[in-house]
Amino acid sequence: MRVLVPHMPDFRALSVPNVELDFYARGNVPAGEAVGAVLWMTDTDTRDTLLKVPGLQWVLTLTAGIDHVQGHLPAGVKLFNANALHDRAVAVHVVTGMLAAMRGLHRFRDAQRAGHWMRVTPPESNLHTLDGLKVVLWGYGHIGRIVDDLLAPFGVTTYAINSKTEPDLLEYRLREADWVVLLLPSTEQTRGVVNAELLGKLKRGAWLSNQGRGGLIVTADLLDALNSGQLGGAVLDVTDPEPLPDGHPLFAQENVILTPHVASTTSDLLARGAAYTRDFLLDLTQGRDPDGLVKAGRIY
Amino acid sequence: MRVLVPHMPDFRALSVPNVELDFYARGNVPAGEAVGAVLWMTDTDTRDTLLKVPGLQWVLTLTAGIDHVQGHLPAGVKLFNANALHDRAVAVHVVTGMLAAMRGLHRFRDAQRAGHWMRVTPPESNLHTLDGLKVVLWGYGHIGRIVDDLLAPFGVTTYAINSKTEPDLLEYRLREADWVVLLLPSTEQTRGVVNAELLGKLKRGAWLSNQGRGGLIVTADLLDALNSGQLGGAVLDVTDPEPLPDGHPLFAQENVILTPHVASTTSDLLARGAAYTRDFLLDLTQGRDPDGLVKAGRIY
Repeated sequence: MRVLVPHMPDFRALSVPNVELDFYARGNVPAGEAVGAVLWMTDTDTRDTLLKVPGLQWVLTLTAGIDHVQGHLPAGVKLFNANALHDRAVAVHVVTGMLAAMRGLHRFRDAQRAGHWMRVTPPESNLHTLDGLKVVLWGYGHIGRIVDDLLAPFGVTTYAINSKTEPDLLEYRLREADWVVLLLPSTEQTRGVVNAELLGKLKRGAWLSNQGRGGLIVTADLLDALNSGQLGGAVLDVTDPEPLPDGHPLFAQENVILTPHVASTTSDLLARGAAYTRDFLLDLTQGRDPDGLVKAGRIY
Repeated sequence: MRVLVPHMPDFRALSVPNVELDFYARGNVPAGEAVGAVLWMTDTDTRDTLLKVPGLQWVLTLTAGIDHVQGHLPAGVKLFNANALHDRAVAVHVVTGMLAAMRGLHRFRDAQRAGHWMRVTPPESNLHTLDGLKVVLWGYGHIGRIVDDLLAPFGVTTYAINSKTEPDLLEYRLREADWVVLLLPSTEQTRGVVNAELLGKLKRGAWLSNQGRGGLIVTADLLDALNSGQLGGAVLDVTDPEPLPDGHPLFAQENVILTPHVASTTSDLLARGAAYTRDFLLDLTQGRDPDGLVKAGRIY
């Protein structure tokens, strides 16, 4: 069977019995029929071309999110995603951001780059461990469970919120939380869910972490909550808009810890992506069901 | 019995049966005999005055280190320290620094303050989880054991080194390490132990964490190792000299993550110190042996 994969060295080096691999680049999809296509780090035009390849039976997106594929998929084409490729790095990134915020690393970095030893006294230090903190994990899937495991020895209490959680309980949890960690997918229901009204319900000084999608948060409302002190701070790996244009006011917020959508990035990500693809193709050709089948109609 | 404690609100609020508390400030030690003195956040002159108080039988230093007291203690006066007050925050700080370094938070902070979204590609990202890393915990006491517990779910392999470790094994561990975490006390034997020779033995690109005492590292040799790329980076909560004078070259190192001796600092540290003192005094007055007795002749 012929399968289209990205034109990257780690994929060029793949060899899978009974699979003829061919390689696409941005704006350059080889002609001819293909049974499957592996989508990664491409643009919307190339994606659209790949999804129209004659003979296509399945698409594997090497992302966790699927909102960039669903809605564009031809009828009858199966979709697989690759949570396992990303979950652990994202979970590590979440915990790192929480710890860095509580240990004040962002403030100390600013003092360091100013060439200055910043003296702090304990009561005014605003430094903490995580001991005793209440953490809401809003969106409790693969990543949330790993976050829970990683946080276990740090003395927090975590509360898992998913789409079945009663609204009253959700509100109660949010009012009590020291941290709200957004791990929600991007859907019509979740777009802008963190707005002025919701931010106003949080405990004053609570921290927010967004590792889901930028559109979950209304950016203007976030800035207001940071400026008023209602929010203690925010750890953001995703933003709206994304990328943030140079000089955007979020950059200047002292208590925003910003990373440029790298939660799942590791130096060996391309190698891991190619290895994931190889295992996926071995499953397919040897009659096993590969992981990651997205049920028809699911939007995340 | 009369005991001298710091003139701080959390100590002023203490009340312990059968103990007459009196309060000293820097440069202002009340006259008269005292059975005990609780040392904290004072200067060397005040310390010297406290150690000469007539009738003194014991000193409790609310620090983990004792090098600022040993050598100044009159004969026959018992010394207690307060590891339990600090160990957990220090261990959390150690793990935070390691995670922040591997997730590139220091580099992303610099880009953020420059008002710029820093694009990274996976292979060049130099981003990692801790999975698979070899971590040498050099100095394996109370703090090292907690660090071990906190790191357990992150997929590292830790190697404990203490004063009984054979030099050959120490050298082998150092050559293999991705991270060397210094948790050593400050003694004549450990002063300058991390020098050019030792840094040259590390695997190229390894990271160093120092949460012990600044004098463990020869600062000039550290700068050389950072500038040559022999060392991937360093997370320093203590330095030599300390505090670093404004504009010291360590400040300007991109891959140095510097915090100003705050590893054990939390907003509630003074309250925790006062509570520790109360429990200590209750132990003493109720005939129990308090924790933290420093054996005669021990220098850490």
